[in-house]
Amino acid sequence: MPKTNISPPSQRIRGVIAPVITPFTADLLPDQQRFITHCQWLLSQNCGLAVFGTNSEANSMSAEERMMLLDALVAAGIDPSRMMPGTGCCSVTETVELTAHAVKHGCAGVLMLPPFYYKNVSEEGLYRYFSEVVQRVGDTRLKIYLYHIPPVAIVGITPKLVERLLKAYPTAITGMKDSSGDWNNTKTFLDAFATDGFDVFVGSESFLLANMRDDGAGTISATANVNPAAIHKLYAESAVAPKTFGAVSADLERQQARLNVVRAVFSNRKFPSMIAALKQAIAICRNEPEWARVRPPLVELTKQQTKLLAADLKAIGFAMPDIERQK
Amino acid sequence: MPKTNISPPSQRIRGVIAPVITPFTADLLPDQQRFITHCQWLLSQNCGLAVFGTNSEANSMSAEERMMLLDALVAAGIDPSRMMPGTGCCSVTETVELTAHAVKHGCAGVLMLPPFYYKNVSEEGLYRYFSEVVQRVGDTRLKIYLYHIPPVAIVGITPKLVERLLKAYPTAITGMKDSSGDWNNTKTFLDAFATDGFDVFVGSESFLLANMRDDGAGTISATANVNPAAIHKLYAESAVAPKTFGAVSADLERQQARLNVVRAVFSNRKFPSMIAALKQAIAICRNEPEWARVRPPLVELTKQQTKLLAADLKAIGFAMPDIERQK
Repeated sequence: MPKTNISPPSQRIRGVIAPVITPFTADLLPDQQRFITHCQWLLSQNCGLAVFGTNSEANSMSAEERMMLLDALVAAGIDPSRMMPGTGCCSVTETVELTAHAVKHGCAGVLMLPPFYYKNVSEEGLYRYFSEVVQRVGDTRLKIYLYHIPPVAIVGITPKLVERLLKAYPTAITGMKDSSGDWNNTKTFLDAFATDGFDVFVGSESFLLANMRDDGAGTISATANVNPAAIHKLYAESAVAPKTFGAVSADLERQQARLNVVRAVFSNRKFPSMIAALKQAIAICRNEPEWARVRPPLVELTKQQTKLLAADLKAIGFAMPDIERQK
Repeated sequence: MPKTNISPPSQRIRGVIAPVITPFTADLLPDQQRFITHCQWLLSQNCGLAVFGTNSEANSMSAEERMMLLDALVAAGIDPSRMMPGTGCCSVTETVELTAHAVKHGCAGVLMLPPFYYKNVSEEGLYRYFSEVVQRVGDTRLKIYLYHIPPVAIVGITPKLVERLLKAYPTAITGMKDSSGDWNNTKTFLDAFATDGFDVFVGSESFLLANMRDDGAGTISATANVNPAAIHKLYAESAVAPKTFGAVSADLERQQARLNVVRAVFSNRKFPSMIAALKQAIAICRNEPEWARVRPPLVELTKQQTKLLAADLKAIGFAMPDIERQK
């Protein structure tokens, strides 16, 4: 494909970005203060903030709730240039509203699901949808990261769609998150678009080293909510010298293997969801039982599952760095 | 299962209900006046109005847009007791807001999708979701029709879920729409719950006669937007005497066969969607090209597909009854 006039990737957000889990009060309302504290801690661990992602239960919140939370983060002094809010809804009107709101706040970018209600929609239909969003937002600061997560959204992002969008909107379409869990799929996007400055983030740190070795931009991964420092260490070291050999390479591989061990604890199929397991882990590590709450249709871990999680974390010697209280 | 204290089905909406397609302006905004006119015409054809269903592109509209449209219908004098607005969103907060709004308007009921973003959620999670809705709306007038449409929502409604909900909320859970396209599934729900006053609507008029013969409540079907009178005729005649034999039965079968012929034209896989085909048919029959518009990610019919549709409608001798203008 032809070279496009994309803004320099050096000015864009890269590295490890946490799809920030959202704490709820006993009434299941977003718990603003706890959310702000968690975001501040993630930033202190060198993580960017993909607030309102799948792991944030964003689609279990209204558009209004999401905008109020983003306003609260900015009001609390969180740097918008470290944020990539999720803004993709089923309706183009809500997606435009959320996206324009994030752009006005000066966010680094937005992570955008395709409209996911109708299935088997055409590439042309998705192209028109994203085109409408770009044109209606109408802001040169807009940076869209397309969100490919077929196991959940079912509707996905294809290379052909990216090619068309990049050609039409070279400055607005800046990258993607690939949560297909299929490295071959990620590699297809990297091979086709990475040298043109299209930033590919993997949706799991299991693929972080592979991604960095293949010109990827980093990872936007759920487990960054609990294991950010170790994931960032591998990112930083592999970003500096992605194509190393010998001892350095072996050390990177060891780091990757350790990340995978930690991730496996949370991916345990005995838990109702990774989201619930992550929240329960924070509840345990910070001794804040409030963190365990999820909005339906998700359910929290049972007492027995919680015991299993605690035992598994202990077995691998996992501990979360202390959170610095900001009250 | 035990008999439950359900309000008499005789006071509930039954029969043929159209999931009303939504016209858009050139800017893709909901076209209020054209929408009102279409709703008035459907009422004149003995159809109830399931505004904001799958065929209405409801999930391609914001919660605010849906509430404004419902307000406009009521302001135009449309009888709320003939309406069953779709109110199920991914977020419990938006579902509660839309549902409370419809109940306050005195609507006959609401058609409620399960939260459809997360897949493989537990029955317990869905039970909690619907429980939250019932409790938060907190209105004895609430009548929920659960919406089972697995080909689109992927997340579905199971008999076990209905059993639990009926037991907990016998007056609020009043029925369902089954758009599985699987008669055996519909029959399972009818056998389990129909005699307890749980109203089962089939999502396609192809199953209308079968449904009426098995204690069903009618149909909520897309094609009621274009073929309401004929569908209502079969409903009315089979509702009076569902278990007929001989000549009467043969006539009902003939009516059913004719409905299927009409439906097949719109289900043609050469069209991008049945929604787009229905809208195009109205555009043709009323000579109102504006009706052809859809919101992305859906796409309208191409010129060639439009020609094919017109030819197919002509071939089966299909015509829409004239719409009575109310200006």
